[in-house]
Amino acid sequence: MSEFTGNHILSVSQFDRDAIERVFSVAHSMLPYARRQKRTTVLNGAILGNLFFEPSTRTRVSFGTAFNLLGGEVRETTGMDNSALAKGESLFDTARVLSGYSDIIAMRHPAAGSVGEFAEGSRVPVINGGDGANEHPTQALLDLYTIKRELEYNNKGIDGLHIAMIGDLRYGRTVHSLSRLLCLYDNVHFTLISPRELAMPQPIVDAIENAGHRLTITEQLEGNMDADICYQTRIQEERFPSQDEANKYRGKFRLNQAIYTRHFQSKTVIMHPLPRDSRMEANELDNDLNLNPNLAIFRQTDNGVLVRMALFALTLGVENLVSQYERDVIWTTKKSS
Amino acid sequence: MSEFTGNHILSVSQFDRDAIERVFSVAHSMLPYARRQKRTTVLNGAILGNLFFEPSTRTRVSFGTAFNLLGGEVRETTGMDNSALAKGESLFDTARVLSGYSDIIAMRHPAAGSVGEFAEGSRVPVINGGDGANEHPTQALLDLYTIKRELEYNNKGIDGLHIAMIGDLRYGRTVHSLSRLLCLYDNVHFTLISPRELAMPQPIVDAIENAGHRLTITEQLEGNMDADICYQTRIQEERFPSQDEANKYRGKFRLNQAIYTRHFQSKTVIMHPLPRDSRMEANELDNDLNLNPNLAIFRQTDNGVLVRMALFALTLGVENLVSQYERDVIWTTKKSS
Amino acid sequence: MSEFTGNHILSVSQFDRDAIERVFSVAHSMLPYARRQKRTTVLNGAILGNLFFEPSTRTRVSFGTAFNLLGGEVRETTGMDNSALAKGESLFDTARVLSGYSDIIAMRHPAAGSVGEFAEGSRVPVINGGDGANEHPTQALLDLYTIKRELEYNNKGIDGLHIAMIGDLRYGRTVHSLSRLLCLYDNVHFTLISPRELAMPQPIVDAIENAGHRLTITEQLEGNMDADICYQTRIQEERFPSQDEANKYRGKFRLNQAIYTRHFQSKTVIMHPLPRDSRMEANELDNDLNLNPNLAIFRQTDNGVLVRMALFALTLGVENLVSQYERDVIWTTKKSS
Repeated sequence: MSEFTGNHILSVSQFDRDAIERVFSVAHSMLPYARRQKRTTVLNGAILGNLFFEPSTRTRVSFGTAFNLLGGEVRETTGMDNSALAKGESLFDTARVLSGYSDIIAMRHPAAGSVGEFAEGSRVPVINGGDGANEHPTQALLDLYTIKRELEYNNKGIDGLHIAMIGDLRYGRTVHSLSRLLCLYDNVHFTLISPRELAMPQPIVDAIENAGHRLTITEQLEGNMDADICYQTRIQEERFPSQDEANKYRGKFRLNQAIYTRHFQSKTVIMHPLPRDSRMEANELDNDLNLNPNLAIFRQTDNGVLVRMALFALTLGVENLVSQYERDVIWTTKKSS
Repeated sequence: MSEFTGNHILSVSQFDRDAIERVFSVAHSMLPYARRQKRTTVLNGAILGNLFFEPSTRTRVSFGTAFNLLGGEVRETTGMDNSALAKGESLFDTARVLSGYSDIIAMRHPAAGSVGEFAEGSRVPVINGGDGANEHPTQALLDLYTIKRELEYNNKGIDGLHIAMIGDLRYGRTVHSLSRLLCLYDNVHFTLISPRELAMPQPIVDAIENAGHRLTITEQLEGNMDADICYQTRIQEERFPSQDEANKYRGKFRLNQAIYTRHFQSKTVIMHPLPRDSRMEANELDNDLNLNPNLAIFRQTDNGVLVRMALFALTLGVENLVSQYERDVIWTTKKSS
Repeated sequence: MSEFTGNHILSVSQFDRDAIERVFSVAHSMLPYARRQKRTTVLNGAILGNLFFEPSTRTRVSFGTAFNLLGGEVRETTGMDNSALAKGESLFDTARVLSGYSDIIAMRHPAAGSVGEFAEGSRVPVINGGDGANEHPTQALLDLYTIKRELEYNNKGIDGLHIAMIGDLRYGRTVHSLSRLLCLYDNVHFTLISPRELAMPQPIVDAIENAGHRLTITEQLEGNMDADICYQTRIQEERFPSQDEANKYRGKFRLNQAIYTRHFQSKTVIMHPLPRDSRMEANELDNDLNLNPNLAIFRQTDNGVLVRMALFALTLGVENLVSQYERDVIWTTKKSS
């Protein structure tokens, strides 16, 4: 039982530093289960309503897998075309009905604020799996958890971290939420690199400055930075007035092994919220980085399972019971990381 | 083991009063499992084929949840676009193949009679989850189960009941099936309130009269009725020749707290098959009724899980074994009703 | 543990005769579990990623059911519209991410070679569920398994078999793969019956001849053959230059009870990959054959579950542990075959 038990997870603003550390501690304890070294049946019989009114394969499957790994069952819905919502039902009614079918709900919906509105009608805890331009708190938590884990290898913590955020900082929901979580820590150095048109929104810049963090704003990669983390995002070229305009920025926000070597330390961790677009010639994250051991993008998605397991366990009050319901792993999983 | 074991559930016409009472008795025994006060693994290892060739989020999830709550697994399909049916396969072949993949099937399909045709090819029991304009027997059973439970609070039974059915009685499949089930009971008073264009079909009116029940037909709410149940339905405005024509009826079939107080007893139970349309100004069931404790619409959907659990248990012959396979509930579900 | 443990299943070309016999032996041992006479929990806690980027109801459900029957859980995705692949993510990235969410993956994708490309990025074993015109190895294995089982009733084996393949041998992926597997056996007689325009591709004809098998090629059913197996396929009429042209062949590739009696032995087993089109008048497999006990088409789909169970068990190294984790079957399944 914890402060999380029975409560919704709707926004990063719910979390203080202690709450984050609690989630991360439980997430860390989930590692042997996620790696199939151990197995638990603590949520045997529990049902997750995995309601993705906006489709998103990987976030949906990540939530479902996290629940399965704790022993629970998953009932799902994908898309909205044939739902009662499309026929004019209120989010309150939909929540009231669907919350009768599960013990906890993970929900994604394209409209900002919709998950919170849904939660008001729900009779079980709701975890926000992304509501449009608004929030995607489990992504922010998995990003921060990844930073914490990656820096441990360098004997560093989040306090005193230097993070470079690159690319589309205006529309990228993930960098906004991650910045807000980082504001809870001490002495963070933010280097924000983006074209002026895609700069970080002022309220977040203000939050960073008000929290007393160090802030560097620039329009392109320059020199060699001592950043611990390079958080790259996708430039949405279609938002520029013309392709010529877009092309002006392309080279600057591309990252490949040569550019990495020129501008970053040999230990700088590379992150990205994924997916990255592999169709174009000059990508924000070239495939030649796949051999770079500091490329943490797939550790990020793996960590997402741990963080979601932790949130389920905390919300359903079983975080201290997981190991009591262990069973043998019978099968052989050839699982590398 | 019961008369249900191994048999299909295709139509309300299969049920006599004894069979209904058997389903309701088993449904009632499912309450602690549905409320997660207890847990059972009686269907552990069993597989439900949840085949929704016509999508319907809540009915599909309700069937799946009911099966999970008994300990079983669910394999699903939604829509028909890419199915073999769309490529010209007969329902017989589809049933023959898909029935090899599960122990029991719940099926929805847009064509009237299709579920019965499918059942002829199936090698496992099939439960009709709605086949177009034809039948939706689990909805009728959950409606009647709700009536029974709601009236118990007033120390009344279904015999001698007064039910007012309001709105679109012509196209509303639920009021047809519910009426047929009520005909099996004694001394029911039906008050049918609808515009003449949307009146209850004559065969059902005949069935009500032939069973010796009391029948009142009117075109609008008038005076204060001693109805035990007010069963409201959605007026499908698009079926009227013009919006002006539709608007003529709107006020009469709207229900809000003021109208309820004017026309019904303080104990009259309000039901609706859902979804209700919350987009328009004058709804058939206004949100101000959400505070009325007699609004039973969400108890209806909750009861749907119990009724479907009962039908699965009876059809698979485990209705007396459920409590033998109980296990502890480990997690904390904050579940209000 | 076996040679299969931890490895992908991508192509029929991976299999030699010993490997096939190993799969078939394990498949045979799965029969009591698939018939719900016994139950096993050997894969309890394991997760299948059932990734159907091209929808296919029956193959998807067959894989999912096979995994459930071994006690495992299934996380699914259907279609590609909203996937990261559609947004330009590489198959490598998709595989890297999604393989973090499961212990084994079954995958279908419309592009030839895509499943192999995916497997290179995957950190868990991948089973090819069909990649466009390329391969569908589990279908070929279930076809061959069916042949083996059906011929046992006649005290025959695959060596020395006479198989007639009829219809569209050019585009029919199943007859290609089945032929390649049969080439591993001895003294097979292939009778290939098709219009010249839809003849078996030359590389497969060469493979049959190089393996020293007997080959008869003809354009229509003639006389009475001593075929053990009649493998019928669907003629895709839309591929002909005109309907008149298509109609020329129609009668010849139709099969009904009268044609069967005229051209085949009374014990000749009838197979078809399904679905068969029941909309047209003169079908490739008329419904009057449904009463013919040699019609094996639904035993084929049932066998598909056994073969997929075997592949999962072998790949996860539990094929010898299945019976150690047996439990009682509690429910009553009325299951005919």
